[in-house]
Amino acid sequence: MKKLKLGVIGTGRIGKVHIATLVQSVPLAEVVAIADTNLKSANEVAGKFGITSVFLNYMDVIKHPDVEAVVICSPTDTHAKYIVDAAKAGKHIFCEKPVDLSLEVIKVAIAAAEKAGVKLMVGFNRRFDPNFLKIRQLVAEGKIGDPHILKITSRDPAPPPPEYSAVSGGMFMDMTIHDFDMARYITGSEVTEVYTKSAVLVDPEIGKAGDIDTAIITLSFANGAIGVIDNSRKAVYGYDQRVEIFGSKGMALADNNYPENHRYFADDGVHGSLPLNFFMDRYLDAYANEMKIFCDSVINDKQPPVTGTDGLMSVVIALAAKKSQLEQRPVKLTEIK
Amino acid sequence: MKKLKLGVIGTGRIGKVHIATLVQSVPLAEVVAIADTNLKSANEVAGKFGITSVFLNYMDVIKHPDVEAVVICSPTDTHAKYIVDAAKAGKHIFCEKPVDLSLEVIKVAIAAAEKAGVKLMVGFNRRFDPNFLKIRQLVAEGKIGDPHILKITSRDPAPPPPEYSAVSGGMFMDMTIHDFDMARYITGSEVTEVYTKSAVLVDPEIGKAGDIDTAIITLSFANGAIGVIDNSRKAVYGYDQRVEIFGSKGMALADNNYPENHRYFADDGVHGSLPLNFFMDRYLDAYANEMKIFCDSVINDKQPPVTGTDGLMSVVIALAAKKSQLEQRPVKLTEIK
Amino acid sequence: MKKLKLGVIGTGRIGKVHIATLVQSVPLAEVVAIADTNLKSANEVAGKFGITSVFLNYMDVIKHPDVEAVVICSPTDTHAKYIVDAAKAGKHIFCEKPVDLSLEVIKVAIAAAEKAGVKLMVGFNRRFDPNFLKIRQLVAEGKIGDPHILKITSRDPAPPPPEYSAVSGGMFMDMTIHDFDMARYITGSEVTEVYTKSAVLVDPEIGKAGDIDTAIITLSFANGAIGVIDNSRKAVYGYDQRVEIFGSKGMALADNNYPENHRYFADDGVHGSLPLNFFMDRYLDAYANEMKIFCDSVINDKQPPVTGTDGLMSVVIALAAKKSQLEQRPVKLTEIK
Amino acid sequence: MKKLKLGVIGTGRIGKVHIATLVQSVPLAEVVAIADTNLKSANEVAGKFGITSVFLNYMDVIKHPDVEAVVICSPTDTHAKYIVDAAKAGKHIFCEKPVDLSLEVIKVAIAAAEKAGVKLMVGFNRRFDPNFLKIRQLVAEGKIGDPHILKITSRDPAPPPPEYSAVSGGMFMDMTIHDFDMARYITGSEVTEVYTKSAVLVDPEIGKAGDIDTAIITLSFANGAIGVIDNSRKAVYGYDQRVEIFGSKGMALADNNYPENHRYFADDGVHGSLPLNFFMDRYLDAYANEMKIFCDSVINDKQPPVTGTDGLMSVVIALAAKKSQLEQRPVKLTEIK
Repeated sequence: MKKLKLGVIGTGRIGKVHIATLVQSVPLAEVVAIADTNLKSANEVAGKFGITSVFLNYMDVIKHPDVEAVVICSPTDTHAKYIVDAAKAGKHIFCEKPVDLSLEVIKVAIAAAEKAGVKLMVGFNRRFDPNFLKIRQLVAEGKIGDPHILKITSRDPAPPPPEYSAVSGGMFMDMTIHDFDMARYITGSEVTEVYTKSAVLVDPEIGKAGDIDTAIITLSFANGAIGVIDNSRKAVYGYDQRVEIFGSKGMALADNNYPENHRYFADDGVHGSLPLNFFMDRYLDAYANEMKIFCDSVINDKQPPVTGTDGLMSVVIALAAKKSQLEQRPVKLTEIK
Repeated sequence: MKKLKLGVIGTGRIGKVHIATLVQSVPLAEVVAIADTNLKSANEVAGKFGITSVFLNYMDVIKHPDVEAVVICSPTDTHAKYIVDAAKAGKHIFCEKPVDLSLEVIKVAIAAAEKAGVKLMVGFNRRFDPNFLKIRQLVAEGKIGDPHILKITSRDPAPPPPEYSAVSGGMFMDMTIHDFDMARYITGSEVTEVYTKSAVLVDPEIGKAGDIDTAIITLSFANGAIGVIDNSRKAVYGYDQRVEIFGSKGMALADNNYPENHRYFADDGVHGSLPLNFFMDRYLDAYANEMKIFCDSVINDKQPPVTGTDGLMSVVIALAAKKSQLEQRPVKLTEIK
Repeated sequence: MKKLKLGVIGTGRIGKVHIATLVQSVPLAEVVAIADTNLKSANEVAGKFGITSVFLNYMDVIKHPDVEAVVICSPTDTHAKYIVDAAKAGKHIFCEKPVDLSLEVIKVAIAAAEKAGVKLMVGFNRRFDPNFLKIRQLVAEGKIGDPHILKITSRDPAPPPPEYSAVSGGMFMDMTIHDFDMARYITGSEVTEVYTKSAVLVDPEIGKAGDIDTAIITLSFANGAIGVIDNSRKAVYGYDQRVEIFGSKGMALADNNYPENHRYFADDGVHGSLPLNFFMDRYLDAYANEMKIFCDSVINDKQPPVTGTDGLMSVVIALAAKKSQLEQRPVKLTEIK
Repeated sequence: MKKLKLGVIGTGRIGKVHIATLVQSVPLAEVVAIADTNLKSANEVAGKFGITSVFLNYMDVIKHPDVEAVVICSPTDTHAKYIVDAAKAGKHIFCEKPVDLSLEVIKVAIAAAEKAGVKLMVGFNRRFDPNFLKIRQLVAEGKIGDPHILKITSRDPAPPPPEYSAVSGGMFMDMTIHDFDMARYITGSEVTEVYTKSAVLVDPEIGKAGDIDTAIITLSFANGAIGVIDNSRKAVYGYDQRVEIFGSKGMALADNNYPENHRYFADDGVHGSLPLNFFMDRYLDAYANEMKIFCDSVINDKQPPVTGTDGLMSVVIALAAKKSQLEQRPVKLTEIK
């Protein structure tokens, strides 16, 4: 079996996720090199997963002669640069979302990959979650008819530190960006207008840092459908990720995943377990599917199912959502340059 | 047992519902007189339910010496006038929603009832549905903590005739008005701002009649919470009425009601019955509870749980929603006079 | 509309249920006379439901010239005698289960009704529950294919007083008898053999009274299927009544009914309400449907769907179950004379 | 991290499962040698999972100097011999169920492991399924109170070839044996008596081969509880594995696992996906947990949670079930020598 030899740049939280997935669950993959500016972290990961080449400098991974594709898990502000460098080196690229906070920079990165003729896939892992896949499949098969109303609920178990907002670009850019992509994916249509109603209800410190922690975002789609995303940075009952699509022929909805399916009937009520609380548990299959598909795309020369343009569009929507929040009015995507 | 003697004005669809409920399910009630401009309809109803006094003119019900309270089920444009007439006659009043399409007219009606010292209750039956009651109870007990996000899904099985829109005041006034009341009821807070995103996706004739059939309505509340209502005039799978409230301590949601609880496992999937499709089936208990509480309020001199002001406020929100739809911007309730 | 004029004998718990149902929910019915050896109870019921003829002696109901049909809700040991007397008087009969504890006595009662040409229906109300009706319908439509395994769970919220066992004939005769009928109804096949495994686990006083409170009863059916009933006199979480049928083409199961459909997500788990706890709440629709069908059978001269033979067969199975319990071996129904 | 070096004997269906699990999901494990009388199969597996030592003769695995523990996945009739040989070689042992069809032979194997002081764990993987673990935990915590009724549903998606029955020892020995172990595990009590009602309803060929394909098995437990297992060799809707425990303080039940949690509402009903259909999908986590615990038991010198005696007891119950089937009477376990 032909294996794809990969290098991973960045061994933080998401880097570890991808390395573990590639090593344990993707027979098509072989991780041959990793890099991190924190060499101690990189060495620990390498030891745990039996990776022999460990570097401080990301370029050593990109230039490594065995590396055919790179997985970019470094901080957001390095993504575009690394994409360009990898493209120049002729390496295929998987990049975590968001590609960048600037549309211009994203476009440069996309152009570099195109010019080099390398694959570029962006890490919207939720597209590969079995629940959301099933909903998309029902829409694609016409089982819903014409889509009329899309509803996405996306709530995190706990907020990041308030200071994270400045780095990440804020809630829309680091959290809702997944939902913006999901909105395009489920409906199969582009977003044309956004209206944001937001609040700081979880932690006033988040507001002081210039961000919001609760939002209801109304979307208009090119195909005539309308939609709504509701977000919270803190759901005390865990990670809450649901989607519902309503159309002329029916409705489909996807519930959360649970650790098991028990119910306990006592004299004070019926009780069950909370949804899976950790993104890795909830999206375990999604991460594995994502990497399998990326490796397959490269090995068998297929178009990856999440493109640089998908990465770009979700940032455009995030910027429109932010503008709508600040100006308290609906914002058309054509306003975002 | 003391019974409340009631007269019912209007024996159309909702009039029949209330008469059947009062006769069959409310031991506190006795329907002694009914009126309808369609005397044939009134006589049929009277025969079916053993009611002896039947009139063409609503004033004959109001003035009937045995009638202690009137239930107004006539067309919307007569509601306020009948309230005023009943109040002058010293009769307690239950009035279907909306009280009127004009805020001034509603205020006159409320004032008349207050001046006469009679009870005035408005027919927001869903407040008495066991599902929504339970959700409200959890909020009132503090189980949700501070409310952050309210979500209401309200979809009808089929649209009314397009020409109905002109008479009814449109979708917000005849259908969403229930949801506006539900939003105030569940959160226990006043709506302060509305943003409407709407579409005509079910039937273009509805659009030609100047109405919309699909909407996502964002709400802001005085207590800081935000909310969203999604509406459709046509859900092919039936009557879809759900509510979800999310707050600092948890979330509660109410699902639809089903005719039974079976599941059928065949080789092509797991199958179940559709939700109850008809508002009378879904809200059977709600109608009975509503009338029991109205009768109890009158007999035992208690404040009815749905007041004229509640009737007024839902119309204010509906007008704001319409204004937002037309002007494509968020509208504050203070803009509505 | 033609109404059936009924007399009710016995105004205890189940008598009150039937009277309330007939008066409030069965437009085809008119209760014209009632009798009870406890005249005070009868008068209270008469006052509450506006019934004018009240008697101490059951024969006054049977002989009442307006009474077309009698509903027998008196103690079990009077059932057969009253059936015979009503049949002789040419009155149609609805009789509560069990008809009697003696097969010979039941046969005499059935013969009397047949000879007189009057309808005789036995009160297996659960056949008219929407859940079980749906399961039966799926079996009858062939959706399950050939039935292989039937499972019935039937647990009461609390045991009757231990001394009740002597009067009632024991758990199989007063409680499981419903399940024996359900087994025949769902499968559409006769029981041929019974094996009982039982225990006294709820209350040792029940054992001292010669009864059991927990049982697993294995059934064989004439069509080759096998089945199992599990019973308990005390489920702390309420009334638990479920059925499952498995066959060559699939499985269908019916869950309990709940007061509403909410779920509450807190940081310690997901919580819901307990099943309906009281037989009247759970089987509200079943009682109404049962009486509607009885009245319709009489008025329109149709065969009632639950016959005297159905009443007989469930007693035969109960006797076999008892014999199996005592002799600790499988017992064929042919052993029961 | 200390790893346990394992040798696997048998690379058939279950052998492949364990090897894949050990290699991909058990960081504590290292598979250093495998053997199969079908060397081609063994070599394929070795290539796929990167195992370097491949043998035709199982003793080469047992004697391999690096092998610390063996995983026995060969046909049932070899289990006991291999246990004895491995024990003599001082190697720890994981053995698939059933250990053997003969109680004497099982006892010899257990004695050999005890004498050699090696760990012996038997492969009742379902004990490590998150659903059943949760139910056991609720029982162990006293949340159910005293257990009264245990119910296990266990149905396979499709029967094995009829000729398999002779080899496997029949349905009780190859399929229900899991349920017998589950019964002991969930209740925490020994089975004392068995009554079997069985049928051939799936395929007459199974009956001709001397086996049955459908059964209801009543169990009595030492702690006073009673229980029932229902089995079918063919559920057209997939693999159906549920458990329910009812006691003095409440009830807990575990449902099946599903590939995702969607529901689709169309105009003809509500539809969902079938349960996971393949034992590997359903018990994926169970297999991983099982092997993690076995490795941990050896490395950290703990008693394995499933002992040779557990393996013995489930065979005793299976023999009693078979005897009851043949003699059509309840059989006490003390009758089985």
